[in-house]
Amino acid sequence: MNTEQFIACLRTCVGENGVISDRSQVLPYFEDWWGRCKGDALCVVRPRSTAEVSQVVALCHRHAVPIYVQGGNTSVCAGSVPPHASMGIVLNMSLMSRVIDVSVEDGAMTVEAGCVLATVQEAAAAAGMLFPLSLGAEGSCQIGGNIATNAGGTAVLRYGNMRDLVLGLEVVLPDGRVWNGLRTLRKDNTGYDLRALFIGSEGTLGVVTAATLRLFPHQPEMITAFMSHPTLEATLAVAQMLRAQFGGTLTALELISRSELQLVLKHVPHVSCPLDGEAPWFLLVDIACGADRDALLAEFEARLATGIEDGLIEDVVIPANMAQREALWAIRHSVTEANKTEGMGFSHDVAVPLRALHAFIEETGQAVRTTFPQAQIVIVGHLGDGNLHYNVMFEKSVWAGIADQAGMKKRVNRLVYDQAMRFKGSFSAEHGIGALHVPEMAAYKDDLELQMMEAVKAAFDPTNIMNPGRVLPRVMRETSGSAA
Amino acid sequence: MNTEQFIACLRTCVGENGVISDRSQVLPYFEDWWGRCKGDALCVVRPRSTAEVSQVVALCHRHAVPIYVQGGNTSVCAGSVPPHASMGIVLNMSLMSRVIDVSVEDGAMTVEAGCVLATVQEAAAAAGMLFPLSLGAEGSCQIGGNIATNAGGTAVLRYGNMRDLVLGLEVVLPDGRVWNGLRTLRKDNTGYDLRALFIGSEGTLGVVTAATLRLFPHQPEMITAFMSHPTLEATLAVAQMLRAQFGGTLTALELISRSELQLVLKHVPHVSCPLDGEAPWFLLVDIACGADRDALLAEFEARLATGIEDGLIEDVVIPANMAQREALWAIRHSVTEANKTEGMGFSHDVAVPLRALHAFIEETGQAVRTTFPQAQIVIVGHLGDGNLHYNVMFEKSVWAGIADQAGMKKRVNRLVYDQAMRFKGSFSAEHGIGALHVPEMAAYKDDLELQMMEAVKAAFDPTNIMNPGRVLPRVMRETSGSAA
Repeated sequence: MNTEQFIACLRTCVGENGVISDRSQVLPYFEDWWGRCKGDALCVVRPRSTAEVSQVVALCHRHAVPIYVQGGNTSVCAGSVPPHASMGIVLNMSLMSRVIDVSVEDGAMTVEAGCVLATVQEAAAAAGMLFPLSLGAEGSCQIGGNIATNAGGTAVLRYGNMRDLVLGLEVVLPDGRVWNGLRTLRKDNTGYDLRALFIGSEGTLGVVTAATLRLFPHQPEMITAFMSHPTLEATLAVAQMLRAQFGGTLTALELISRSELQLVLKHVPHVSCPLDGEAPWFLLVDIACGADRDALLAEFEARLATGIEDGLIEDVVIPANMAQREALWAIRHSVTEANKTEGMGFSHDVAVPLRALHAFIEETGQAVRTTFPQAQIVIVGHLGDGNLHYNVMFEKSVWAGIADQAGMKKRVNRLVYDQAMRFKGSFSAEHGIGALHVPEMAAYKDDLELQMMEAVKAAFDPTNIMNPGRVLPRVMRETSGSAA
Repeated sequence: MNTEQFIACLRTCVGENGVISDRSQVLPYFEDWWGRCKGDALCVVRPRSTAEVSQVVALCHRHAVPIYVQGGNTSVCAGSVPPHASMGIVLNMSLMSRVIDVSVEDGAMTVEAGCVLATVQEAAAAAGMLFPLSLGAEGSCQIGGNIATNAGGTAVLRYGNMRDLVLGLEVVLPDGRVWNGLRTLRKDNTGYDLRALFIGSEGTLGVVTAATLRLFPHQPEMITAFMSHPTLEATLAVAQMLRAQFGGTLTALELISRSELQLVLKHVPHVSCPLDGEAPWFLLVDIACGADRDALLAEFEARLATGIEDGLIEDVVIPANMAQREALWAIRHSVTEANKTEGMGFSHDVAVPLRALHAFIEETGQAVRTTFPQAQIVIVGHLGDGNLHYNVMFEKSVWAGIADQAGMKKRVNRLVYDQAMRFKGSFSAEHGIGALHVPEMAAYKDDLELQMMEAVKAAFDPTNIMNPGRVLPRVMRETSGSAA
């Protein structure tokens, strides 16, 4: 069967409009949103139902055609576009975007994989409930991609990662069979946790077609604060105090470095900072509450007053209304745009144990400043999770003057990841592996752990058609020979 | 190699005292705590370190000797004792009971698998933190067993199951290799979630030797209430109101039927009930709090007052101190003892979606009363999780008069499990499968799901030496031929 015949078969699965093969229309599906990764594939397939996904996957399985699953195409590690010269297909899930069921009583909602995260949040809110996952790309990323990458974001501290928010899954396995694991149960100890295995597997074990998600009681009140600190020690001491004192009500604890704040103020219009922007570190804090708001606020203000007296806090602003709160959060939500505008930044989505945060930031900073004096260190992080987006940033003109750019990139990454691993951390805390971090999997993962993952991959996808070349460094990438 | 030679080899792994083969001493390890399941094995091996476990497992692997892993031997489904006439060994983890590390800053502690749950709780408390897992057997069950069975208990509503409380694991794989997956990270998206796979796998994929557990800020204050309700509808309405209003602070929401309360009062000395015990349903509620206690208590009391006005609550008692609180919780913690004393009870650890709770209880009750008029229905449950311990109870003299006891047991189980599955529930919400519920796995699990689990089992334990006959109905049990 040649390529045209294969594409014709795909059209019998998903209809004429379900396959995009016109070269003028496929490009947006082959390129990531940064414009850094461009791939190629036979075509784009857009199924409208689980049955269609099943047929497409079964067809690809029979003909050993690789499948690259794509949600909102917001991956930051080339996880959502095909590789160069691929003979596979892009399976784009956007047309499967139904909210199937929302149940306040169950505290659960079931959605198709192509549902945009913001739509999920809105559907939950419309029922008076909260779906807590929140991240920069929420307006375009899809829940299937959030599941594939075990997405994190700003509310992990209180509500956990995507893995903690999924009660059940429907998955099309690599041979086309459909596993209906959609459940609303909180407790079901009947065998292995297959659900957890698919979450974070980045499409290498099957295609998630639908999910049942946990909903939480809507917390009607929020206490937010933005504060500046004189030193890193002081910042971490305040963070530790907040975690101890406001435990389960603390939903966000975001760290922002002065350099990051300055880039936001420089590049993003309509964002302003109510504090003196010259402090070295800032914390953005959310405490979710209800009837207890006044008591919590009084306690919170008292603790902050003590922090100021003790010299741990320079200044603090507590917004009086939602508009003021959103203006503060706009700073946090603008960092990606600001960093992208500034120049060439190497972002590292690292995590370290909380007790190693201070040493990691200090020692890595010293090493970067010594080794790459032209670079600027820009940090924003989910401090409560020990998760830092550690950016080593070269201003555009500086970057243009660097001769061996590829070598520089490698050396920067190596330094930061080596440091994270030295402190028993992770080289990819919440973004996943995609295609981009496969070399780090090879460099930093324990051999036995790779073997265990390879055994799982072989058990579920022995012919390696699902997202080949992603996640696992020693499982074959697609070679140009895998023809239809 | 004959049995004696094999046991001698085991002694070279764990020392003379590490192997118990004397028939007079092995019996407590071969019998479960109910005294219902008695097995047999070559000997009991008690390792003192991960290295010793590794050597023992490697030796068993070479000689194809089955390994039955045992923690505190508190399984309620024959998961912790060997089968009849086994030619395998019991690997008892009790001597590996060290608390390795407690870190307030990391919010994490690392313990060996044989650590008793109560010891873990105490070590956390000594550091001013909370390890929230709490269940009846906490004084003797071990953390390794809690992990193997993904234990639940009374605090799942707020803190999740064991799976949610484990950050990292150390596991000896079925060939003796050691996976060091001990991590304190909240976020680590570098490949498949191997950790989650071992949790709940009941020793069929490897031996958990140590774990890093999540700690939470200690909540210094607790609001507890015990209340009676006129109907099931009223009980569920109050439960729903509490979940909506006290969201993340609600840590326990336990349902007790009149029949269960009466059995406790009948059989367990020193337990008394401050409410009129004739109401059909009771709720025991915990709200954990801190500085916000007064505000929460005022809100709580106001809501309960409304509940009383609306006829949803008959009466309520809010303890004024810890001693009074413990007296109330003593009712809940005494149910197992009471049920055991009463007679022959068939306990069903089922879960159903929250919105199906009412229909499940009503319809199953009707069916049981019609089919088994001699039986009494006794219910205690973790209502917030949809998890009911649904007991069909025969008073001793009634049970003695039943001719076909084995047939009766089967019919009772079949009825209750059929009902749970009809409502898209689970036949084992928190107790796991062990050996006892393997027939239900065969009867109720989707064939494809069993195939997926079998593929995982084959990937990790192809020679099937780890807890054979547990969890998976179609993977071979031990036959008497598997000699050393």
